[in-house]
Amino acid sequence: MTSSARESMHRQGVGLDQLCVNTIRTLAMDTVQKANSGHPGMPMGAAAMGYVLWTRFLRHNPANPQWPGRDRLVLSAGHGSALLYALLHLTGYDLALEELQRFRQWGSRTPGHPEYGLTPGVETTTGPLGQGATNAVGMALAQRFMAGRFNRPGHSIVDGNVYAIVSDGDLMEGVSSEAASLAGHLKLGNLIYLYDDNRISIEGETRLAFTEDVGRRFEAYEWHVQRVDGNDLEELTEAIAQAQAETERPSLILARTHIAYGSPSLQDSAGAHGSPLGEEEVRRTKERFGFPPDETFYIPSEALTHFREALERGKRWEEEWNSGFAAYANAYPELAGEWRQALTGELPEGWQDALPHFAPSDGSLATRSASGRVLNALAPHLPGLIGGSADLAPSTETYLKRLPDFSPDHWEGRNLHFGVREHSMGAILNGMALYGGLRPYGATFLIFSEYMRPPIRLAAMMKLPVVYVFTHDSIGLGEDGPTHQPVEQLLSLRAIPGLVVLRPAEATETAEAWRIALERHGPTALALSRQRLPVFDRSALAPAEGVRRGAYVLLEAAGGPPEAILMATGSEVHVALAAQSQLQADGVRTSVVSMPSWELFDQQPQSYRDQVLPPGVRARVAVEAGVTLGWSRYVGDNGDVVGIDHFGASAPAEVLQKEFGFTPENVVLRMKDVLTRTRR
Amino acid sequence: MTSSARESMHRQGVGLDQLCVNTIRTLAMDTVQKANSGHPGMPMGAAAMGYVLWTRFLRHNPANPQWPGRDRLVLSAGHGSALLYALLHLTGYDLALEELQRFRQWGSRTPGHPEYGLTPGVETTTGPLGQGATNAVGMALAQRFMAGRFNRPGHSIVDGNVYAIVSDGDLMEGVSSEAASLAGHLKLGNLIYLYDDNRISIEGETRLAFTEDVGRRFEAYEWHVQRVDGNDLEELTEAIAQAQAETERPSLILARTHIAYGSPSLQDSAGAHGSPLGEEEVRRTKERFGFPPDETFYIPSEALTHFREALERGKRWEEEWNSGFAAYANAYPELAGEWRQALTGELPEGWQDALPHFAPSDGSLATRSASGRVLNALAPHLPGLIGGSADLAPSTETYLKRLPDFSPDHWEGRNLHFGVREHSMGAILNGMALYGGLRPYGATFLIFSEYMRPPIRLAAMMKLPVVYVFTHDSIGLGEDGPTHQPVEQLLSLRAIPGLVVLRPAEATETAEAWRIALERHGPTALALSRQRLPVFDRSALAPAEGVRRGAYVLLEAAGGPPEAILMATGSEVHVALAAQSQLQADGVRTSVVSMPSWELFDQQPQSYRDQVLPPGVRARVAVEAGVTLGWSRYVGDNGDVVGIDHFGASAPAEVLQKEFGFTPENVVLRMKDVLTRTRR
Repeated sequence: MTSSARESMHRQGVGLDQLCVNTIRTLAMDTVQKANSGHPGMPMGAAAMGYVLWTRFLRHNPANPQWPGRDRLVLSAGHGSALLYALLHLTGYDLALEELQRFRQWGSRTPGHPEYGLTPGVETTTGPLGQGATNAVGMALAQRFMAGRFNRPGHSIVDGNVYAIVSDGDLMEGVSSEAASLAGHLKLGNLIYLYDDNRISIEGETRLAFTEDVGRRFEAYEWHVQRVDGNDLEELTEAIAQAQAETERPSLILARTHIAYGSPSLQDSAGAHGSPLGEEEVRRTKERFGFPPDETFYIPSEALTHFREALERGKRWEEEWNSGFAAYANAYPELAGEWRQALTGELPEGWQDALPHFAPSDGSLATRSASGRVLNALAPHLPGLIGGSADLAPSTETYLKRLPDFSPDHWEGRNLHFGVREHSMGAILNGMALYGGLRPYGATFLIFSEYMRPPIRLAAMMKLPVVYVFTHDSIGLGEDGPTHQPVEQLLSLRAIPGLVVLRPAEATETAEAWRIALERHGPTALALSRQRLPVFDRSALAPAEGVRRGAYVLLEAAGGPPEAILMATGSEVHVALAAQSQLQADGVRTSVVSMPSWELFDQQPQSYRDQVLPPGVRARVAVEAGVTLGWSRYVGDNGDVVGIDHFGASAPAEVLQKEFGFTPENVVLRMKDVLTRTRR
Repeated sequence: MTSSARESMHRQGVGLDQLCVNTIRTLAMDTVQKANSGHPGMPMGAAAMGYVLWTRFLRHNPANPQWPGRDRLVLSAGHGSALLYALLHLTGYDLALEELQRFRQWGSRTPGHPEYGLTPGVETTTGPLGQGATNAVGMALAQRFMAGRFNRPGHSIVDGNVYAIVSDGDLMEGVSSEAASLAGHLKLGNLIYLYDDNRISIEGETRLAFTEDVGRRFEAYEWHVQRVDGNDLEELTEAIAQAQAETERPSLILARTHIAYGSPSLQDSAGAHGSPLGEEEVRRTKERFGFPPDETFYIPSEALTHFREALERGKRWEEEWNSGFAAYANAYPELAGEWRQALTGELPEGWQDALPHFAPSDGSLATRSASGRVLNALAPHLPGLIGGSADLAPSTETYLKRLPDFSPDHWEGRNLHFGVREHSMGAILNGMALYGGLRPYGATFLIFSEYMRPPIRLAAMMKLPVVYVFTHDSIGLGEDGPTHQPVEQLLSLRAIPGLVVLRPAEATETAEAWRIALERHGPTALALSRQRLPVFDRSALAPAEGVRRGAYVLLEAAGGPPEAILMATGSEVHVALAAQSQLQADGVRTSVVSMPSWELFDQQPQSYRDQVLPPGVRARVAVEAGVTLGWSRYVGDNGDVVGIDHFGASAPAEVLQKEFGFTPENVVLRMKDVLTRTRR
């Protein structure tokens, strides 16, 4: 800092606190201006709450962003990423100033919206509004669960708070409404939202579309609600302290802020939302703050020193926590071992021994029922397995019997009741997985995966080990009709990069599917039948280990190499087997490929893929009770697909299967047409 | 009715009203029991509100379900369809008792959840929770708009109310929270929710997950809130009358009900939610109601007579409305003509003349900008065109300049501010289209189509003429990064049966895309670029009329029939054109196919498809900045796809296009590989 600039600041009587706040503002302005892209207004408006939170409350250690005893902070308003990057740099995270100067550039660690796994200190990927706020609910829930599981009298190794900075947009999105209702219900008093109430959205003032009484709404959800001036450091401090003190209810602090605070021309205007201020306006704003107007990325050394005290504080906190943990480990060595094990993200050894075995003598059972048996068999061996359903536990068979519900009276409870709230269920599962130490799952009908695609996509992007149990996976659900019958959902889930979709054909494949899902470091969707399906006799068919390769020859052609291949997934594998038997009887050597997962099959070496689908065999028919789109690359130019390229209908499942052509007879006919074509 | 049964009722002093209510209950019970599938509890619990509404308030004419002057009624709790079917039959709609006896069977008009277009009197397809409640907001909004457009002093041809019967599940879903906030903001006093507050959901009592104060929440949205006993006919009557009288605020009536009311064993239990009561319980319930226990589908004649008075009332209402309309037509003949025209669902003749023309001299412009020009050019000629954006109007370029915003001060306004509420935007658009007389559109970034898939699917199922303007349609959006870059969205939208996706390559194709969208009787999604793209010189390239066939040869191969085909959509057509020029220079005769819509192309006759993609030309490369999944059937076994099967990144668009291979050079390389392969 030049001595004249320093004098200028002193002349204006700017104290150290305000200097620090303005440092955040000018850094954010410069960050966005240099990129010539981004959102400067939000960081400038929310700088004061960021400052207070990070220097007076947030328990974190910038030198060890993974320290398990830390508070969690979510910037739900991810477009204000420059605020977060400024704070991470200033408080001493491994994020150099050069990274702020490469904001939004190829290969930088400062992308347009914060990305989990890329930038130290970023707890979740945010940007799609409402997601971060809901992740925070999941984190707060996970923390309660971990506390319930591990804390013991006199030993509180899990505590602290989850903070989220949320915007108007976050609170307009329905997903956050769902989550807030559930958070209030669950009494997540460890959750604190700081609402950056700047009253400006992209189209203009929020009063164009958003005039509800947000505070009153949150009171209806049983939240603790406070209103403060978002630029008043003492009001903010007092409010956060009160929010911390309130442990029975989650807290909402409505902080009245001003977008682009300090900008002579753009403060309180939508023009500062999604565009840089412009060089001249940046200069003028710096002048107003008493900062040298021509210097960029300027950090007054007093401010930096003050921010970097976070390192010393963090070190001390972590040391205190470590000694607390040592005492805990002394008193509860077994639990401490479980804790360490849980934190690795790996499952305890030997868990797979608990997987149940199924045999034809078990009779017919729906894959949802097989899944329920697997879950219940695994639950005692996987103490971190916790999940629930969006009010469909009896139908999805995801309830863990003999284990308690998660509730304020039973934080160690393993069954979650999400209510009819699929979207927030997805985003809460993400928050739980991000918190660490547990393995979350969530269930609903496959059709309602449509309500939760944004968080599924984010789970895939963040590679979170979330398991989705999607039952009633086809027209096989029957009478509920087309609104409830998934048709395009298998394909649209397969389209998400990094998500693995598994549609097992029967009970043993279902157990394998669960094994794969729990071994994965990324999200997995299980598509399960409502209807009963016989358990395969594996003495006559290939072993179900093939599931892990995505597709496998379930039944070889009889009498020589195959002339024809039937491939199918889920309940339609049974149709393919019956068709094979007719084709063989008609002298067509036909193999049956069970293909529970395209994604896993595509990852296999070419040699394996050619073994399952020999390139020379061009007569191929796929059978799946879903849209035919996407199957071409497996059946090839000469193949055919028995699928359903229209919506379903309300009728008993057997009637629909017949009417829509999912019968062995129809499959045989279609294959014979293909054979005629390919033999020409 | 046997005389002894009648006596039994009289003995119990059951009045006519209660007899009618119990008739609804027993009909619904029998309907579900006969199907051995469905939800009996809801209709039994909500029978009283259904009775009061239909016999004392709902302005409808069962003999003419299309009468434009009718109130609208939405059964948002679509699983309670047996309630609606009972009321439709009882009040004289064209729905025979035999149809109730074929509930949930193949080919019946009584599917598991109500389906629009299938059953007279069903105003929207419901089942996925929250959708119907939000459709109702759209209907109420549409009614206000139509009133603003057509009513004149002393002539109120558009009035009445929109009613929705909503359940716990409807109110837990975030989509309804968004919609309720907007409805309160817009002061939709013509909207009345009857909340079937039965406190039972599938997993058990709603208090497992839903303990918020719903009434207080709706008060925070600025709704008018009342609480009544849902079995007390007079309380219900008084509350609905008050709700009608309140014209400034939408109304919520919390009616405390009892699921499966009257069932000796199952009332107030989750067991009555999704399963038939069982024959013995049905008998016992009928006995309790004083109904003959062994008769099924029994309708006391006094009850039927009373219900059927709806026909006479409806006739009178319609006649009154008709004479009012005649007076209106006399006073405002031109408006009356417009009204009649609007109600046909067709656009006024000659509207296409207003479509703007674009030429290379217009310079480069993003297809979102071309779309904005089209919208603004058409708006004055299409007075029923009304829409808006989920807080992205400046970015999606969907604002109708020089036309007012829709608001309580300007019901005739044409610009809607949905706020950051994509999901409810989608469901509100459906309600608007269902109301009739207007053409709604909604806009957001393509990535956020993920937030609104459930209503898009329902629009497709109902064949509603909704237009979605999805901009920022690829990694071409640049710096906002992977959370905002659509990758799998084009494919996942294409998977929805009945939805047409159009991704125009430049301005002229964009105008054609709008023409197609507005001519369609079904939903259309436009995928538009953020980045600027040159306008094609149509003197050197084929005319853009080809867009309506889904794909067309934009540029023929030079020097003879093609050896190779490049196909592309949207911004990548420009890459393909540049690659073609290099390939031609290298002696490869290459045609370029612009392929804005798979769905439209698939509908063309084989001869046309073979003309665009000659079967003999096996060297084919597709270029699209999205997942490659699904392209196989166009490029064939020997072809290749330049796409992106992973998430994007935050960087300037040009950098991303280069890094991810969307360059002419890369396309040329990939085509040369394909040529080597196919020539072997």
